[in-house]
Amino acid sequence: MEALVYDGELSYADDYPRPSRALGEALIRMTLAGICSTDLEITRGYMNFRGVLGHEFVGIVEEADSPALLGKRVVGDINCPCHECDSCRRGLSNHCPHRTVLGILGRDGVFAEYFCLPEANLKVVPESVSDDEAVFSEPLAAALEIMEQVRVHESANVAVLGDGRLGLLVAQALAQTGASVTCIGNHEQKLSLLKGTTVKAIIAREGTAERFDMVVDCTGSASGFDEALRLVRPRGTIVMKSTVAAKASLNLAPLVVNEVTVVGSRCGPLHKALSLLEEHTIEVTRLITDRYPLSGSLAAFDAASTRSAVKVLLYPTPKP
Amino acid sequence: MEALVYDGELSYADDYPRPSRALGEALIRMTLAGICSTDLEITRGYMNFRGVLGHEFVGIVEEADSPALLGKRVVGDINCPCHECDSCRRGLSNHCPHRTVLGILGRDGVFAEYFCLPEANLKVVPESVSDDEAVFSEPLAAALEIMEQVRVHESANVAVLGDGRLGLLVAQALAQTGASVTCIGNHEQKLSLLKGTTVKAIIAREGTAERFDMVVDCTGSASGFDEALRLVRPRGTIVMKSTVAAKASLNLAPLVVNEVTVVGSRCGPLHKALSLLEEHTIEVTRLITDRYPLSGSLAAFDAASTRSAVKVLLYPTPKP
Repeated sequence: MEALVYDGELSYADDYPRPSRALGEALIRMTLAGICSTDLEITRGYMNFRGVLGHEFVGIVEEADSPALLGKRVVGDINCPCHECDSCRRGLSNHCPHRTVLGILGRDGVFAEYFCLPEANLKVVPESVSDDEAVFSEPLAAALEIMEQVRVHESANVAVLGDGRLGLLVAQALAQTGASVTCIGNHEQKLSLLKGTTVKAIIAREGTAERFDMVVDCTGSASGFDEALRLVRPRGTIVMKSTVAAKASLNLAPLVVNEVTVVGSRCGPLHKALSLLEEHTIEVTRLITDRYPLSGSLAAFDAASTRSAVKVLLYPTPKP
Repeated sequence: MEALVYDGELSYADDYPRPSRALGEALIRMTLAGICSTDLEITRGYMNFRGVLGHEFVGIVEEADSPALLGKRVVGDINCPCHECDSCRRGLSNHCPHRTVLGILGRDGVFAEYFCLPEANLKVVPESVSDDEAVFSEPLAAALEIMEQVRVHESANVAVLGDGRLGLLVAQALAQTGASVTCIGNHEQKLSLLKGTTVKAIIAREGTAERFDMVVDCTGSASGFDEALRLVRPRGTIVMKSTVAAKASLNLAPLVVNEVTVVGSRCGPLHKALSLLEEHTIEVTRLITDRYPLSGSLAAFDAASTRSAVKVLLYPTPKP
């Protein structure tokens, strides 16, 4: 089958072995997949991952133990825990030390014709949610994770740093709480995608004298934390959403002096993302800037790395 | 009067002008003062402070507006807020952007015969608490601040990194919650000061396979955060108590992936520290490793910088 493989170098293969599913797992045929900044970071060394990249998808179940799943259009939780260890028993299965993670850790990902996931990870996509919308369910869930971890009061003023694929989702998700949300980015064109939403957009170079109750770092850059520390008020909260391979040179003294709280935030509740997509209150499809067949996935990665790209999608190369 | 002054260089003066108190302030005669790691960091450039160093003290009120304070033995909150700004009105006076801080920011400190503090900052020391104990009230309050910010469950396992003046106080303060507390340090002799307490002591080089619900960084070193990140369990909490002038090269990805919370923690509730000192359940006086007259304060700073030092005290040079 065709697949985009990273083994220290990124390459497209048309003869990658089609996976066979394990007991309890489903074999899924990818219909649409999204490129995430984490995929780009992996090609810079993050996680030392080797294999098929990709973890944002919508697909059709081709094989499964449960007949009810066969032929269903699904999205899925990307963490595959052991269900047996202390972490799993304590309800922290997303943090299971034995977990594999789709396209990130010990498990081939979705930039391929087929891939496998445990059936327990799958959520059937409601009919009213299109593929173009459903493919955002994983990053939208990651955005919603913030509200699982931190109480966002409707009187809060919140800054989201970064106008990339994640920042634009996080800003809209946070605005659903009724909080006053400002997205601070470097690209007028990307910030313009927030028009018609309640999110206020600011070009970073113009700056702001405001200090925020909460600052969410979606810059995807090692320097995002320093900027967040500069913008947060004393006793405020910084939420870190970016996973970056690079180290940053940081002075943590302002964190101590201003008694700031920093919260690391990763994957979130997929069922809540699907419910929100069903409400059609968040603009996701306008974030799609490009789509490529898997055979053009190297070009798609180049496109996803440009300053103007937001969400770049991949789909199986049509058979002649 | 005599004073230990930092103006880019540390020097002892015997002709420093005696301060005159402003309205609402008390003039205090220092009887005992403690050297803190923050004082040492200031001499490495932290806070760009210039003036008389020192903020841990016990002293006698010599002049004040309130007759009730005259002649009283006091300790004091080191933050002097404006009482008028937004932060002050919201109950965040310790974070007032216009504040001065005793011996740290815009206000001469206590390593001198006399100094001034607002009367509102002062707490009278109970008779049953000796000067040697009372001089620990400010750092003990800083240790207690952790429990003001974070709920420490009695079933939690907590690691305190660092066996210095602050680490040994923090470990004992946290143990008061009933939590299981491990102090991880580099000095057998300092860790032995925890004998007879419920705190477990571990030499860092021997390591531990344990992962902790909470890790408190009291290393006073820029590398403490990395070690804390290594020791904390997923979804656990790191409390940062050290203010360090130096930058550290940090990769924050594990913070995001493991959804760790980091809490910066500074000054704490002085009245609670005094109550705890009255109970005599925390070992403070055994942390005193040296005491010097102000005339020997340069030697005292050298002593406080050695590996074997814990708390080094200063007192006014006896008059002949």
